[in-house]
Amino acid sequence: MDIYEALYTTRAMRRVKPDPVPLDVQAKIMDAAVRAPSGGNQQNWRFLLVDDPAIKAKIGPLYRDAVDKLWTTFYASQLEQAHATPEDPASISFLKVQKSAQWLADHYEEVPLYLFPFIQHDPTGGSIFPAVWSAMLAARAEGVGSCITAILSFFYGEETFEILGVPKDEGWVMAAMVSMGYPTGTWGVAQRSPAHEVTARNQWGTPPGFSTPEPLWRPQP
Amino acid sequence: MDIYEALYTTRAMRRVKPDPVPLDVQAKIMDAAVRAPSGGNQQNWRFLLVDDPAIKAKIGPLYRDAVDKLWTTFYASQLEQAHATPEDPASISFLKVQKSAQWLADHYEEVPLYLFPFIQHDPTGGSIFPAVWSAMLAARAEGVGSCITAILSFFYGEETFEILGVPKDEGWVMAAMVSMGYPTGTWGVAQRSPAHEVTARNQWGTPPGFSTPEPLWRPQP
Repeated sequence: MDIYEALYTTRAMRRVKPDPVPLDVQAKIMDAAVRAPSGGNQQNWRFLLVDDPAIKAKIGPLYRDAVDKLWTTFYASQLEQAHATPEDPASISFLKVQKSAQWLADHYEEVPLYLFPFIQHDPTGGSIFPAVWSAMLAARAEGVGSCITAILSFFYGEETFEILGVPKDEGWVMAAMVSMGYPTGTWGVAQRSPAHEVTARNQWGTPPGFSTPEPLWRPQP
Repeated sequence: MDIYEALYTTRAMRRVKPDPVPLDVQAKIMDAAVRAPSGGNQQNWRFLLVDDPAIKAKIGPLYRDAVDKLWTTFYASQLEQAHATPEDPASISFLKVQKSAQWLADHYEEVPLYLFPFIQHDPTGGSIFPAVWSAMLAARAEGVGSCITAILSFFYGEETFEILGVPKDEGWVMAAMVSMGYPTGTWGVAQRSPAHEVTARNQWGTPPGFSTPEPLWRPQP
């Protein structure tokens, strides 16, 4: 797969089939992930792959509760706004994400594989998220859909450490939870604010000197 | 370029030529970057591309000073250890990174392009580093080398905001500084601890069920 196809079409794929991700595919994903950079090349990372139904059955209820909390805290006003103006493009987009996130919560135990990345000594996240994103891009190349979520660590970090047997006195931070599986839907280029609107040149607010109203890469018909 | 070639060979490329990165290449890099995921697809990001010699001349001295500080704080004991055991593989690897980082500090103003990514409302870094890493992977596909660094924000965040005109009351966080340019060296697969040594299955410390002693992807001869 071409690098641009992977970069443009690796969008959040929460709805997946229960079919397992074969071990050799998982090996490809993780082998690609560890090529990513980390501060001072320290590689203070660990990755936990979870496919045991008994473990998923313990985390599922926590995840569902965390998602419930999300709608009543972080996204409460945005959700209210979206319901008040359901025909607004921003509302449509938000409610689409919300529905998809709720699907993952409702079907947590059916998703075949979860990747939990952990990192030490990384105040910015810059030493773990390149590896996580590489894993997701390699997964895309193998036809595996993924979605990165943060809320489990926001609300149930301690409980998840307990369930996964993560040592508590070594400074590990759970960076995210990534769901993985073969998608039920189709790949496509996600909608984004154009690059030229969020990029400046030399000074904040100065136009970048290029214009990208439409994505520069499109799938070949 | 194949996705795996990009994922395996996008290693830290600090030593670059002064040749400018054309605007259309920068557009490709940024257009790919904004396809990355962000929490709730909020895209609370801004990217600042710096190529003005006057701006680089202001940041250069700060960056050099930050690098000096790095060797006497974060990496002081590791540097001492490396100098004490210079033939140890870990020392060789560390001193190679150290020398390369020092090169970037010494030649800051000669590097043609810097990318400064900013993010709001992102406690983990998970909403900005996928985009940053996508930019670096797209750069790789275009033959542009890059390196992600965090230390400017550690030591001179406030001064850098001032120089770049970043508003101080909007909650922006400077996630990193990424150097970009055409490399003087050659691309290659970076050395990493094997994936199976840093990956566990279902419980911390349990082997993952696959073994990857050698990288699964290699450049075609």
